[in-house]
Amino acid sequence: MTGKVGTNTESRKVACAASVAGSIGRTPEHLLSSREHKSVGTVVDIGGVPVGNTELAVMAGPCAVESAEQILRIAREVKASGANILRGGAFKPRTSPYDFQGLGKAGLEYLRAASSDTGLPVITEVIDPHHIELVVKYADCLQIGARNMHNYSLLREAGRSPRPVLLKRGLSASYKEFLLAAEYVMAEGNNQVILCERGIRGLSNELRFTLDLNAVPYLKDRTHLPVIVDPSHGTGNARLVPAMSRAAIACGADGIIVETHYSPKDSISDAIQTISTAELIQLIRELAALAKVVGRRIPLPLVK
Amino acid sequence: MTGKVGTNTESRKVACAASVAGSIGRTPEHLLSSREHKSVGTVVDIGGVPVGNTELAVMAGPCAVESAEQILRIAREVKASGANILRGGAFKPRTSPYDFQGLGKAGLEYLRAASSDTGLPVITEVIDPHHIELVVKYADCLQIGARNMHNYSLLREAGRSPRPVLLKRGLSASYKEFLLAAEYVMAEGNNQVILCERGIRGLSNELRFTLDLNAVPYLKDRTHLPVIVDPSHGTGNARLVPAMSRAAIACGADGIIVETHYSPKDSISDAIQTISTAELIQLIRELAALAKVVGRRIPLPLVK
Amino acid sequence: MTGKVGTNTESRKVACAASVAGSIGRTPEHLLSSREHKSVGTVVDIGGVPVGNTELAVMAGPCAVESAEQILRIAREVKASGANILRGGAFKPRTSPYDFQGLGKAGLEYLRAASSDTGLPVITEVIDPHHIELVVKYADCLQIGARNMHNYSLLREAGRSPRPVLLKRGLSASYKEFLLAAEYVMAEGNNQVILCERGIRGLSNELRFTLDLNAVPYLKDRTHLPVIVDPSHGTGNARLVPAMSRAAIACGADGIIVETHYSPKDSISDAIQTISTAELIQLIRELAALAKVVGRRIPLPLVK
Amino acid sequence: MTGKVGTNTESRKVACAASVAGSIGRTPEHLLSSREHKSVGTVVDIGGVPVGNTELAVMAGPCAVESAEQILRIAREVKASGANILRGGAFKPRTSPYDFQGLGKAGLEYLRAASSDTGLPVITEVIDPHHIELVVKYADCLQIGARNMHNYSLLREAGRSPRPVLLKRGLSASYKEFLLAAEYVMAEGNNQVILCERGIRGLSNELRFTLDLNAVPYLKDRTHLPVIVDPSHGTGNARLVPAMSRAAIACGADGIIVETHYSPKDSISDAIQTISTAELIQLIRELAALAKVVGRRIPLPLVK
Repeated sequence: MTGKVGTNTESRKVACAASVAGSIGRTPEHLLSSREHKSVGTVVDIGGVPVGNTELAVMAGPCAVESAEQILRIAREVKASGANILRGGAFKPRTSPYDFQGLGKAGLEYLRAASSDTGLPVITEVIDPHHIELVVKYADCLQIGARNMHNYSLLREAGRSPRPVLLKRGLSASYKEFLLAAEYVMAEGNNQVILCERGIRGLSNELRFTLDLNAVPYLKDRTHLPVIVDPSHGTGNARLVPAMSRAAIACGADGIIVETHYSPKDSISDAIQTISTAELIQLIRELAALAKVVGRRIPLPLVK
Repeated sequence: MTGKVGTNTESRKVACAASVAGSIGRTPEHLLSSREHKSVGTVVDIGGVPVGNTELAVMAGPCAVESAEQILRIAREVKASGANILRGGAFKPRTSPYDFQGLGKAGLEYLRAASSDTGLPVITEVIDPHHIELVVKYADCLQIGARNMHNYSLLREAGRSPRPVLLKRGLSASYKEFLLAAEYVMAEGNNQVILCERGIRGLSNELRFTLDLNAVPYLKDRTHLPVIVDPSHGTGNARLVPAMSRAAIACGADGIIVETHYSPKDSISDAIQTISTAELIQLIRELAALAKVVGRRIPLPLVK
Repeated sequence: MTGKVGTNTESRKVACAASVAGSIGRTPEHLLSSREHKSVGTVVDIGGVPVGNTELAVMAGPCAVESAEQILRIAREVKASGANILRGGAFKPRTSPYDFQGLGKAGLEYLRAASSDTGLPVITEVIDPHHIELVVKYADCLQIGARNMHNYSLLREAGRSPRPVLLKRGLSASYKEFLLAAEYVMAEGNNQVILCERGIRGLSNELRFTLDLNAVPYLKDRTHLPVIVDPSHGTGNARLVPAMSRAAIACGADGIIVETHYSPKDSISDAIQTISTAELIQLIRELAALAKVVGRRIPLPLVK
Repeated sequence: MTGKVGTNTESRKVACAASVAGSIGRTPEHLLSSREHKSVGTVVDIGGVPVGNTELAVMAGPCAVESAEQILRIAREVKASGANILRGGAFKPRTSPYDFQGLGKAGLEYLRAASSDTGLPVITEVIDPHHIELVVKYADCLQIGARNMHNYSLLREAGRSPRPVLLKRGLSASYKEFLLAAEYVMAEGNNQVILCERGIRGLSNELRFTLDLNAVPYLKDRTHLPVIVDPSHGTGNARLVPAMSRAAIACGADGIIVETHYSPKDSISDAIQTISTAELIQLIRELAALAKVVGRRIPLPLVK
């Protein structure tokens, strides 16, 4: 404890337990996620839909699967909009233990049925390493949420599963921490990882989160993994979703994941930030036009 | 001091001196900047160039005016790129009193000369109420920087000047505080105010700032004033400037303000975040294509 | 999607999946952690040492258990200093999968041996629900780290264990989220929970974290659970540990948890923020004097 | 623009206009505020009361001067409590131009009268360089508020005044920026500067600000200037003021500045965070006892 505060700290050993900004102990070329390790962009396959390719991914669906009827109706409307992947939560991470925790296995079954009906592959969240074996039977892609970005047991277990993983950035995670969380998955042998910027804790409470789109070009520069954006959580406000979806595509995102419902006000959860499926149709048309300008594409469904 | 911490605070009087998140004491329709007060978007005139119209504003130039030759050469290249407003600092707000503080009056003269040569109107920063009388003689628009967003004397004096004002958001200002800073200018009779999102203090130091593009659709919804974006300060990194400029336009910004130099590495200041004028040409072409998709336009110069 | 952005959101349903600031769906008196539910402060028993009582808890030890000899020597010096609980990590949560992950079961055995030798009860971190059954055999208290504050599977499993739980605040968790994480443990039947403020993500990188001591009186007002402070992670700098330990006790904390080593520079991890055991002796003397002034006490060992 | 994002930036020139974290262009020993420049702690004299000495400074008074009667009554009660400096705002920086802006010159006269009656020296805020000439006639110390920490014209003008300056930390200022703001004052020849930590923008809105007490030992290590703490703004909640005042003294602050009123609920402003003068008496007694333990002292008035 000699010398000035903050002086010469570099010459001391790096901190550990909470060394969240700490050294990674490897050169970039040894990190599986780095551009140095693999320069060509990775294309992740979600049930036949490529993510990271010229074609943009649009994942859409309700916050939570509420019933067989609800998810089926939404899936059909999502399909008709031109989105190519269905999202929906069966296991919900909730701040309070007394809140609705999702339908669990039944929710997975409803999702699968909606997928079979529409042909849309399915992505759903896992919050417990124990659930992965079950979820793998129903879902085409595992989502790991922001609050679990540092849940290393879950990351590792997902890394040992046969499904691609969509990894959301933690609420206050640095880019480096985000990339190292992906490294936990990849180190287990699963290189099918998609990164998702979903908003960070900001400085005011006027919006729920601050969508950090700087992350998109920054990460695309550093990693070969696809990067998508969640404008629903990233704004917490349905009115801002279209504008921020456009911004995401304009700055280079490989797709978006968006909450939608035929009647947002009737959804059990995330009503404030959920756009209607009618709005989704309009949004995808806008994104398709925008995609062309930035060298990407979204194939629109034929209007009947 | 009875009751629980944080309980019943609403029933006590609102806090004052630092009531930065406090009540504004007026209903929205009485705030001059509000959509309730004026529903039609304001078009600000900067030396003949309208901002807030269909046509996008592209303000470009060096961080600091360094010499008559430097600003003239940059102005000509900026003009050739299709940008429509010249920026350049004569009075520089510096964190340290020992850093280069700008050329002052000489800088203003060089700016004016470059403006006369190219026909581009000029925007430059004011950091002291005393300077406004002088700056008004040379500049077409007054810029008030992030660190002066709460400098009420400066805001008021700018409100009494005959020039439009570009007001940058403070480094940790809420949207409400930002709008109320504009209100200080407008309350003095100057309704020619442009808001500029330029990045907020973020949670990691991997980039200098976090560009908060949520601010664009949020503010456009609340105020009739034009909103532009500064991707140079908002990223602190020239490599991210093109992507974030596109994102800004895609989410509804009325323009951008960007630092450029014919040789960024030779600029006295902001070299890291300054794009070359060659890169500016390419960027404006991209933005022009993008603008059409979102119902805006940038007229490109004829290629000689 | 009618009405202004941010307007009337209260009248819509509360958001779900990431409703980190969301409604808790219960009145305060129904929350097990609330003062409304239980007005008298809870005293948690860690292997015979009460926490939350007049006597202050001082938990001290190395970041990681490195060898049987290392932890035994530190335990003896910790005991001699007057600290009453031994800390040490056997399972380490690491940002990178390639960093030292702890000695695991061997580390637990060394900890237990050091505990038997000195009589100090032992606290150690759990990072995986699967580990709890094992850790319970060796440790007197389970620590759940900041990065796992939202790991609901881990919280629930800890809630079903027979050991008290030290829960650290997440890096960007609100007070409400922190209390609701404790609720996850308590809802499973384990009411022996200690809260620990350990620093949040701040706005500059001059120190690793911002120790938020406002949390201490705020939480003590809202909950009957003991609240302690981690000045090692909360500052990331050994030079600041004594001052912030004093501040913690002065504002009402029920104790501290501090990293110490006989030779900080030789510790594998957290060297920068680890105080020497010689410094620990001096610190505890200072805290003992301070404790009296605020109505608490630390019994000092007899000087041999 | 070759190489990876964020790579080799060190080898490019440092950024300027917003180089808030930028290089200072001088070695520490050349900075007037540094310990390297002057190792012995500076004692600032406020109207005969030394700040930075063994004796602690307690500055207390209302948020705003509301009337001659109000400030006189408060001054007498402040004097009786044992506080040694009177605070009160005559010029108020307000987020909205439509809020109460203070009594101005009349407020200064009432303050002076209260000072003459009680013998307490007076500190009051300046928000405009033009006001300094006037304020100097009435006040013993100039306060520069958080929102003006980057107002370089104001800092310079204060540096040319014959009064000591209390400089508050900006809402999102780094320690380095804070010290460089002090450098602006000192570079003009005024070395009588006191630094004040008053809370930074935090991550939740449960409290108005996050009081960053890490700043106290960090700054005391780096600078010879006195450092005090404002627990009123730093918590935004009167219930937390006593605990955080104690914490401030325990971690080495040279004093506190606190808002007080004989009837907080009747104060025009800052009612939520203002303690009653009765609470002030109790607080100062606690601080006096605490001061002894950390080698400082507060002389208590004789009880009549």
